[in-house]
Amino acid sequence: MESSTFVLFGATGDLAKRKIYPALYNLYVDQKISTPFSVIGLGRREISKDAFQAQVLNSLQTFSRRPIADSAELQEFLQAFEYSVLDVGRPEDYKKLLQHVRQREQQLHLQENRMFYLSVGPEYFEEIASNINSSGLGSTKGWKRLIIEKPFGTDLKSARVLNDSLSTTFKEEEIFRIDHFLGKPMVQNLEVLKYSNPVLRALWKNRYIANVQITASETVGVEERAGYYDKAGALRDMFQNHMLQLLMMIAMQLPKGSTPEEIRSKKRHVMESLRPLMKEDLAQHVVRGQYTAGEIQGKSVVGYTEEPNIAPTSQIETFIAARLWIEDPLWSEVPFYIRTGKRMKEKSTRIVIEFKEPFNDYHNLNRSTQDPNLLIIDIGPDEALTLQLNTKDPLRHGELEPVPIKYQSGNADMPEAYENLIYDALRGDATFFAHWREVELSWQWVQPIIDAIEEGNLPLHPYSSGTYGPDAAMELLGNDRWWQDDVSDSVEDNVIPLPAKEQQSIRPGA
Amino acid sequence: MESSTFVLFGATGDLAKRKIYPALYNLYVDQKISTPFSVIGLGRREISKDAFQAQVLNSLQTFSRRPIADSAELQEFLQAFEYSVLDVGRPEDYKKLLQHVRQREQQLHLQENRMFYLSVGPEYFEEIASNINSSGLGSTKGWKRLIIEKPFGTDLKSARVLNDSLSTTFKEEEIFRIDHFLGKPMVQNLEVLKYSNPVLRALWKNRYIANVQITASETVGVEERAGYYDKAGALRDMFQNHMLQLLMMIAMQLPKGSTPEEIRSKKRHVMESLRPLMKEDLAQHVVRGQYTAGEIQGKSVVGYTEEPNIAPTSQIETFIAARLWIEDPLWSEVPFYIRTGKRMKEKSTRIVIEFKEPFNDYHNLNRSTQDPNLLIIDIGPDEALTLQLNTKDPLRHGELEPVPIKYQSGNADMPEAYENLIYDALRGDATFFAHWREVELSWQWVQPIIDAIEEGNLPLHPYSSGTYGPDAAMELLGNDRWWQDDVSDSVEDNVIPLPAKEQQSIRPGA
Repeated sequence: MESSTFVLFGATGDLAKRKIYPALYNLYVDQKISTPFSVIGLGRREISKDAFQAQVLNSLQTFSRRPIADSAELQEFLQAFEYSVLDVGRPEDYKKLLQHVRQREQQLHLQENRMFYLSVGPEYFEEIASNINSSGLGSTKGWKRLIIEKPFGTDLKSARVLNDSLSTTFKEEEIFRIDHFLGKPMVQNLEVLKYSNPVLRALWKNRYIANVQITASETVGVEERAGYYDKAGALRDMFQNHMLQLLMMIAMQLPKGSTPEEIRSKKRHVMESLRPLMKEDLAQHVVRGQYTAGEIQGKSVVGYTEEPNIAPTSQIETFIAARLWIEDPLWSEVPFYIRTGKRMKEKSTRIVIEFKEPFNDYHNLNRSTQDPNLLIIDIGPDEALTLQLNTKDPLRHGELEPVPIKYQSGNADMPEAYENLIYDALRGDATFFAHWREVELSWQWVQPIIDAIEEGNLPLHPYSSGTYGPDAAMELLGNDRWWQDDVSDSVEDNVIPLPAKEQQSIRPGA
Repeated sequence: MESSTFVLFGATGDLAKRKIYPALYNLYVDQKISTPFSVIGLGRREISKDAFQAQVLNSLQTFSRRPIADSAELQEFLQAFEYSVLDVGRPEDYKKLLQHVRQREQQLHLQENRMFYLSVGPEYFEEIASNINSSGLGSTKGWKRLIIEKPFGTDLKSARVLNDSLSTTFKEEEIFRIDHFLGKPMVQNLEVLKYSNPVLRALWKNRYIANVQITASETVGVEERAGYYDKAGALRDMFQNHMLQLLMMIAMQLPKGSTPEEIRSKKRHVMESLRPLMKEDLAQHVVRGQYTAGEIQGKSVVGYTEEPNIAPTSQIETFIAARLWIEDPLWSEVPFYIRTGKRMKEKSTRIVIEFKEPFNDYHNLNRSTQDPNLLIIDIGPDEALTLQLNTKDPLRHGELEPVPIKYQSGNADMPEAYENLIYDALRGDATFFAHWREVELSWQWVQPIIDAIEEGNLPLHPYSSGTYGPDAAMELLGNDRWWQDDVSDSVEDNVIPLPAKEQQSIRPGA
C-alpha cells in the first residue's frame, strides 16, 4: 500500500470519534495501513495538537474493539494526528491546509496521495469539493480520493445535482461513497457464499426460491437525530441506500471469475431490472408506518410525535416495507420483501431466503408442522448463517420439526465495517462502495414513493413501539409470512409459540 | 396398539439386559406399549419369578436412559414379567410355554397376539421356529411375529437355507429382522431429511455429488466376542448388514408419497443396481485389514492375534473398506466408499456427502484453502447434521475458510434404537427392518469377497491400532480423500492441521 495523507473534515464529530479513529487504530495494529502516515483533522474550533491527540486517544479508549493500553505503538499512532482549524466557506483556510499537508508530506517522506474524508453534513459536500479543487489540494502528483458519507441527495434531482458538482473535482473512480452496511463482514461474505459454494449456487434459482426477505429493524427511536430524521424518514435514512444495497448484494448474479467492476455492473443490473412503481397501485407495494407509544423490553417509550424536537403533526415514516420484483430470468416470480423500522421488537439485520414448499403428501407426516426450508443470513447484531431444515421429531413418532443448522461467528476479533471500508479505500478497491449509477438508480426507483408521499397518496400507518410494524406490512405479503425470531404483539391471529431459545428455529410472523 | 404377549428367548442374556428390558421400560413410561402387557422370559436355568423380576430391575438400574426410582409405575411394569424354563430342543417345554402364555392371556384379558423375540445364537433359530409351529404356540387367533437378531446366515447359501426354514412357520411379513443401525434416530431421519427438504432434494443428484462416504469406526477391539468374531470378521459382523443397510438408506430414491412398502422396494432397487464384484479385479475395490498393537487415547493395546482366544495365525479381518458403484441414472459415476473397523482412532458412525468442486477461478481467492462443500450426517456416538460451506475469512482479506453449519441434537430424551424398533414391531411397521430380499441381495454382493478370501486372493493388510486403517484403504480412493475429524497417524504426507475444536470443520485424511 502506498503512503498517503488522510484529510478528515469533521474531525471533532461523532462519527470520527465512534468509528473512524477506532478503525484507523485497528488497521494500524493489524499493519494494514502504510507507515508513517499522516492524519490532518479539521474542524471549526481552534484546538491544539495535544488536545486533538487527547481527543483521539479518548475515542479509542471508549470505542475501540481492542483494549487500549499505553505503549510505544499507541504513542506512535497518536503522533500521526495533527489538527487545522477550517471554516468550510473560507478559501484561505484551504490554502493553510495545503501548506500543512505538504509540510507533513515532506517531514514524513510521504507520497503525494491524499484521501479526503467528508465526515460532515451533506450541505457542505459541494463547497468542500470545490475548495479542494481551487486551493490546489486536489492537484497531487499521486492519487486523490474522496470518501463521503450518506445522505447522497434527498431525491433523484438533488442527487444528480450533487454528483455533477462533485464531478468537477473528482472522477467517479476517485469517489468512495460509504454505505456502511457494505462494510459488514457478513455482507462482504455474500458474494463469496454464493460463488464458492456449489450447494448454494445450485439452489440460487427461482425454481427453488419462494421469496427473499430483507429486514433491518431497530429498537431505538429517533434519538438525537430529530432535525435530520424528521426530514429524511425511514425511506431516505435506510431504504434508498442500505436496504437497496442489500437487495443488490443478495440478488446479483455473478459470472465466473468476477472482477470488482463486474460485481458493480451486476449490482446495476439488479437495479435496472427492478419493476418500476406505478403511481396507480403504488400503495399496494409500499407500506409506511410511524411508531406510537409502547413498550420495548419492559420499558415504556413515547410515540414518534412526542419525541423531543419532532413536530407533533409530523407525517414522517419511521417504518417502511415494500414488495419488489426483479424482472430477469433468474428472479422472475420471486418477490423480494424489504422492511426497516425504528422502535421495533428486536434489533436485527437479516436476510431470509424462503425455499419453495416440499411435496405436500409425505406419508404419515403431520402437514401442519412442515415448514419451508430457510437460509437465514444474520448480518447484525450477531453474525450467523443458518439453514433451517425439517427433520423427524424423534419424540413424536413421524412428525416433522424444523431445526436450524447454524454457524455463528464467535470471532471477537472481527474487523468492523469502517475498518474494512477505510482499508479498501486506501487500497483503491471500490467493490464495497456505492457507485454513482447504483445511487442514481436507487433514487430513480424510490422517486415515485417520494412523489406519492408529497401528494398525500401513501397513507401513514401507526404501529405500537415494540411490535414488528403496522398490520398493513403483514398484509403486504399476501399468503407469505415474514420470518422472524418472535411474533408480533400487534396481531393476535395465527400466533405460533416459540420453541425454546436453545437451537431455536425461526417462525413466521402473523 | 393391540395388546400382546412378548415371548423372549434368551431372557437372561446380555442383549436382553442391556437393550431389551430398558427399551420395554422406556416404551412403557412413554405409554407407547399397550397395557396390561405380558412378557414371558425364557432360559435354560430354573429361576423364580421374583428372581427374574429382580434381574429385570437390575438391568433397568444399570442400563436405562431414564433414572429408575421406586414407584407404583415401576412395580406395575415389573409385574408384567414372568419366567419359564426352556430347553430349545425339548418340545414339551414349548407345550408348557404355551400353557403359560395362555394362562397370562386369560388372566390379563390380552388379545391372542404373540411376539417371539429370538435373542439367542443363530444356531437355535431354526429349531425354535419349528417348535413354535409344532407346539401350537404359533396358532393364534391374533397375529404372530418373529423378531430375530443378526447374523442371518454366514454366506448366501446358509442365509437362504435359514430363510427357507423360517418360512415354514412365519410369513415374510411376520419376520422382523433387526438391524439395530436402522433403529438409530439419525438413520430413521434419512428418508425424512431427503424427502421433506427441497434444498436437499435439489442437490441429491450426481450432477452435484462427487462421492458418498460411509464410515463406522470403533475404538474397541474384539473384546469378549472372540469365538464369534474370529469366524465372522468385519465383513460378516458389520459390512454385509449394517454398512449395506446404511448404503441403501442413503442411496434410495423415494417417489412422492412413499409407503413403507415402497421404501423397502427402493432399498432393494439400490442393491439390485450395485455393480457386482468381478473375481479378476476384486482386490482393486475391496481392502481388508487387521489391527496390530498400537495406542488408543494414550493407552497401549495389543494386536488382534494377541487377543485372548484368538488364534495367533488368524487371518480374519478387523477392517474392511470398499468402493461401490450404483448403476442407475441418479448415481452414475458417483463412487460410494464404505469402511468399518475396530481399534480405529475414533468412535464414529458417519455419512459424508462430498459435493463437486466449486469453480476454480474465483478472483483474489487463494485456491488451496477452497474445500468442497460437505453434508455430514453423524449417526453416532453423537447425532449431528452439518453442512460445511466456504466463507470469506474476515481476518485474512479475501481468503476462504470452510465453516461447519451444524445442528447437534442435544436431546438427552432421545429414544434408543431398540425402543424405536420394538415399538415398530409391536405396531407391525416393518419399514426399519431388513426384508429378506435385502438380506439376500447383500449376501449376493458380498459372496465374491467371501470366495476371494477363501481362495487366498484378497490380502490382509496390517494396520496399527489407533489409526484410520491400512494405507491401502487410503489408496483405494485414488484422488479422493476420506473426510474425518482427524488425520491418520499411519500416513505423514499431506497432514492438514486441525482447526480449534469449537466449530471444527472436518478435513481430508491423507
